[in-house]
Amino acid sequence: MRNPQLNENGELTHLLSIEGLPRHILSHILDTAASFMGIADREVKKVPLLRGKSVFNLFFENSTRTRTTFEIAAKRLSADVINLDITRSSTAKGETLLDTIDNLCAMHANMFVVRHAASGAPYLIAEHLKRVRHKNIHVVNAGDGRHAHPTQGLLDMYTIRHYKQNFEHLTVAIVGDILHSRVARSDIHALTTLGVPEVRAIGPQTLLPAELAKMGVRVHHDMNEGLKGCDVVIMLRLQNERMNGALLPSAGEYFKHYGLTPEKLALARPDAIVMHPGPMNRGVEIDSGVADGKQAVILDQVTFGIAVRMAVMSILAGN
Amino acid sequence: MRNPQLNENGELTHLLSIEGLPRHILSHILDTAASFMGIADREVKKVPLLRGKSVFNLFFENSTRTRTTFEIAAKRLSADVINLDITRSSTAKGETLLDTIDNLCAMHANMFVVRHAASGAPYLIAEHLKRVRHKNIHVVNAGDGRHAHPTQGLLDMYTIRHYKQNFEHLTVAIVGDILHSRVARSDIHALTTLGVPEVRAIGPQTLLPAELAKMGVRVHHDMNEGLKGCDVVIMLRLQNERMNGALLPSAGEYFKHYGLTPEKLALARPDAIVMHPGPMNRGVEIDSGVADGKQAVILDQVTFGIAVRMAVMSILAGN
Amino acid sequence: MRNPQLNENGELTHLLSIEGLPRHILSHILDTAASFMGIADREVKKVPLLRGKSVFNLFFENSTRTRTTFEIAAKRLSADVINLDITRSSTAKGETLLDTIDNLCAMHANMFVVRHAASGAPYLIAEHLKRVRHKNIHVVNAGDGRHAHPTQGLLDMYTIRHYKQNFEHLTVAIVGDILHSRVARSDIHALTTLGVPEVRAIGPQTLLPAELAKMGVRVHHDMNEGLKGCDVVIMLRLQNERMNGALLPSAGEYFKHYGLTPEKLALARPDAIVMHPGPMNRGVEIDSGVADGKQAVILDQVTFGIAVRMAVMSILAGN
Repeated sequence: MRNPQLNENGELTHLLSIEGLPRHILSHILDTAASFMGIADREVKKVPLLRGKSVFNLFFENSTRTRTTFEIAAKRLSADVINLDITRSSTAKGETLLDTIDNLCAMHANMFVVRHAASGAPYLIAEHLKRVRHKNIHVVNAGDGRHAHPTQGLLDMYTIRHYKQNFEHLTVAIVGDILHSRVARSDIHALTTLGVPEVRAIGPQTLLPAELAKMGVRVHHDMNEGLKGCDVVIMLRLQNERMNGALLPSAGEYFKHYGLTPEKLALARPDAIVMHPGPMNRGVEIDSGVADGKQAVILDQVTFGIAVRMAVMSILAGN
Repeated sequence: MRNPQLNENGELTHLLSIEGLPRHILSHILDTAASFMGIADREVKKVPLLRGKSVFNLFFENSTRTRTTFEIAAKRLSADVINLDITRSSTAKGETLLDTIDNLCAMHANMFVVRHAASGAPYLIAEHLKRVRHKNIHVVNAGDGRHAHPTQGLLDMYTIRHYKQNFEHLTVAIVGDILHSRVARSDIHALTTLGVPEVRAIGPQTLLPAELAKMGVRVHHDMNEGLKGCDVVIMLRLQNERMNGALLPSAGEYFKHYGLTPEKLALARPDAIVMHPGPMNRGVEIDSGVADGKQAVILDQVTFGIAVRMAVMSILAGN
Repeated sequence: MRNPQLNENGELTHLLSIEGLPRHILSHILDTAASFMGIADREVKKVPLLRGKSVFNLFFENSTRTRTTFEIAAKRLSADVINLDITRSSTAKGETLLDTIDNLCAMHANMFVVRHAASGAPYLIAEHLKRVRHKNIHVVNAGDGRHAHPTQGLLDMYTIRHYKQNFEHLTVAIVGDILHSRVARSDIHALTTLGVPEVRAIGPQTLLPAELAKMGVRVHHDMNEGLKGCDVVIMLRLQNERMNGALLPSAGEYFKHYGLTPEKLALARPDAIVMHPGPMNRGVEIDSGVADGKQAVILDQVTFGIAVRMAVMSILAGN
């Protein structure tokens, strides 16, 4: 079966997941993003690549920040952006998801940016578009359930490549609640596809999924062990709802074992970079001394994220 | 008294209702819409007709879909669109509706797109604008109470003309809750103005208004009878609140008598088209076999709706 | 210590408060606004001064009207405007205000328009931007707590200058709840800076702050006394929450003593103008006979407000 993200020429037509994408496509996105980095420094931060195109933000799950980054990226490409307040829309009136999609297609939508609490929702939409033969309408997954968050994965790769030049000799650790994290899953697929030789997962047993070994990831429960010799440390946000749940004793206990402090960070390589997808819980998964320290590249991730999303949108629209 | 929708030269200055508009104005809107249909297929889907104009979406009643179609239409005309969240605005702080309008006029609004639960609210605004001598500010009724939804009526006429070429020999049936439907009222006025010789209303006694006969409409309570020989079948959405009310026994009972199934549709002419203003309640007023069948033109209505709204806005702004 | 609103060349880099700004800067803003007044009458109401710039509306306190005026002003300058729904954003997820700001800076924001319930919040943001060396990102205070609302103060000055030509011989009365009013505070600073010789405050003891005398303002508890000989009467909105509180007996009682009626207005100069920041409570602080009368310039304030906000934004972006 053909990868549903690729068209008959093997070009990217939807971005649904990093899993299954060949290395040259990931590299092409990163290269294209690099070409967009200069735009933000210009007096007029716009290019006309998507002029007259309609990009619909379909956020079935609320995320002001992610929506904003896509909105900025689309506007810098000169697209018209329409934010749908899904919770108040026809879907809320009992219309099916696919009827809503059909209606938006009939309004000549060019791209859907989809955030959904259910894993697989963007695939469902992409398959439907194929079935009804809307070949020129593209889907970007902006996070679906625990499954994937591919643009976050790509901007993380952009950040690593920016600071480390290439992926070939790196040791990368991902720390925290990997079980519930679509970011972690996208990062792991991207890192292994791009040739990172050692990917580590650090966290308590209850927050690590069973399949990590199959994905080629080394598991560490002791953070001090796991950080040794790392080039890159990716911290994950601890969702508030986990802290009150049965999976964790308390936020304080979590911080003691898995919060990144300057002392623990000293175990990694001296030139290691620290990443975080945001928003940060200071004092829970990360100490302010690290978050505001010299090794943190967290705000660069945000900047690169705009360029990466511009790259994804312009590549899809061009294919 | 002069029709409040027309200026001293008999040109359309507000679109409040189809009732009372002469046939040549309706035809001019449909012809203008036809000229906009090509734009959606272009690489850059924009024309500069409303560049620098400010269009305010004043939705006192929530309707994401209708608001979105107006937003898209205005943006394709290059207007600046401002969506006012009315429920959180000054009106909510006790300001009167007309004080709110005066304030927006003072901000140099060019057009108000108004959705309101109260019948007549757009008229009230248009009259006020005349009284305070804002001759260059236009009002488009995007649905007021049970009264009118003129752009829906117009896009329905566009759809009929597209598939049937002219209105002169047609039999058109409107099925469902006509009593509470502003769409039905606008359709009936448009159909009779454009010269459709036979308009039928099909529904239970409790959901048909008494004045239908006066409007030149034939009433049918038996759907099988009513559909015979029809060229066009317009299904209406059954509002959820009716289903639980005293007016109807149950959704299942309603579907049995007035839901459009392939079997019932077979009673109409073989080339009959099926229309629906959306969002559909599948299995309540329409069977999925019909909704997804070859005779359904429901998504075309959506596409034509953008062109019709572009036509209305550009005609108003030009007069 | 340098005024945090000015850069090293003494030019305006943030607009946080009118207090402390030299007269020539206020006059420059008013002069620039005058040059924008012509734009609203043009066919295409746009200038490209902020093309490609990103303006973020950060409204931590809801105000549809003020947000709309800034949105219109920014769009007429051709900026991209991003409205952040703060109550649903990362700040709500426990992120600190300054982390949110850092993230938006990383997205290459050019300007923040900030409304906040806490006095001083825009200062906090401006200081932070200086600390992290974002010299090209500007802050406009759109109202902070009881502290300041400088663009309202400026548009009030524009209105007075428009009708009275200069400030040198005027008597200006501000009437109502001055204690809780950021508008009043900004007006008083602007009036005294621009050289108005007599500024009066009229209101009940409970709604006048103690420091008025220090600010060079004459206090009147008797409205009939206070209005005598005034050239300008600025009415303040009475917040609903005050009416139910311990500070006031009742809305009716308030209107009797401090509501502006045609009779009371007759005590001012015959050519006195009446101003109000809106939204009005008709029958509470102002009688409809005055609100809709010939001396009211309340809607002109709104129109001038767009030009003043365009002036502020373009001056900041140019410095």
